[in-house]
Amino acid sequence: MRILLIGATGTIGRAVGDLLGERHDLVRASRRGPYQVDLTDPASIDAMFTEVGTVDAVVCCAASGAMSALTGPAFWTGLDGKLLGQVNLVRQALPHVRDGGSITITSGRFAEPVPGSSLGFLVNAGLEAFVRAAATELPRGLRLNAVSPGWVSETLTGLGMDPADGTPAADVARLYSESVEGTASGRTWTSSPPTPGPSTSGSSRMSRP
Amino acid sequence: MRILLIGATGTIGRAVGDLLGERHDLVRASRRGPYQVDLTDPASIDAMFTEVGTVDAVVCCAASGAMSALTGPAFWTGLDGKLLGQVNLVRQALPHVRDGGSITITSGRFAEPVPGSSLGFLVNAGLEAFVRAAATELPRGLRLNAVSPGWVSETLTGLGMDPADGTPAADVARLYSESVEGTASGRTWTSSPPTPGPSTSGSSRMSRP
Repeated sequence: MRILLIGATGTIGRAVGDLLGERHDLVRASRRGPYQVDLTDPASIDAMFTEVGTVDAVVCCAASGAMSALTGPAFWTGLDGKLLGQVNLVRQALPHVRDGGSITITSGRFAEPVPGSSLGFLVNAGLEAFVRAAATELPRGLRLNAVSPGWVSETLTGLGMDPADGTPAADVARLYSESVEGTASGRTWTSSPPTPGPSTSGSSRMSRP
Repeated sequence: MRILLIGATGTIGRAVGDLLGERHDLVRASRRGPYQVDLTDPASIDAMFTEVGTVDAVVCCAASGAMSALTGPAFWTGLDGKLLGQVNLVRQALPHVRDGGSITITSGRFAEPVPGSSLGFLVNAGLEAFVRAAATELPRGLRLNAVSPGWVSETLTGLGMDPADGTPAADVARLYSESVEGTASGRTWTSSPPTPGPSTSGSSRMSRP
């Protein structure tokens, strides 16, 4: 398969690239290149697809949305990139994905509502509901899924926290390959244990090996 | 109580006004007035609060977002008004609501994913998750809830459909009064029977009389 991997330079993106690159033809994009894209700018998404051409799958791990409190000044940053950016990506990708191909985006996860999490809850619940509903609208056998990575061990280590509280990036990467190489559509995979709350509904879980 | 009712001229807004107006001091706003507001324009929300001053409750029934298919040209209309507009309203309302007051916004409901519903699913799931999480962030004992009205009988009649498939606006209005006059926070009330799917999670239901 020819696969466009967006967010290829991040912690998860690198792990996904390592795993899928073993058996597929990967085209890597990120804000810094080699193919440049800024998900907050629809024109930049169009320009990327014009350069890259047709692919069998699009995988987006570029889901860095700032999380801020309800009254914080950066409240909308996460909406622009993570929510609106990824929804725009799905819409703009459709004509460039071959029949029966797939698009995989990245959601997130919170254990429980805490101060500062309201934007994250909105984004994740919105994205997962969008994936579930939009999957039924896709033409030509196209599939759409999300991965909800939760905390990644490597990120926790970088923050001086216990990596055992997260999932190794290599294990998270397997959820993306399940979406690309499997047959599911409309699903959200998470590497976290099930938690109560709106963003877990309708999700499917894959246990860690 | 002094209550700001936004969307006062709509089918639900009129019913909410009739019910709450019996025992409270209502200030009515809508795109057409008497107090004018356009939820897609944050400056217009600020101008409204400057004119209206301090209130004990804000109720927003102005949740008319166009629903369109994933590939439709008007895809973002619903996001601008219903999702971003109501989230902005909550943020901008905070300094103008008295200690212990409430804000009530309007979500929606779909029985099942169908073509054209993906934006609606995103908006409703996002709003309900936002309400649940943001309620934990509010200062001064402020409360935040949502009402998810589903189909309203009067709307169905206007469309030449069977009003028995919906809920009378007067019954929907009681869900808003429950939010304003009760003590709950972070809840979503719906007048529809429970349906499977992401937008129902975490919701509380009030049966029709």
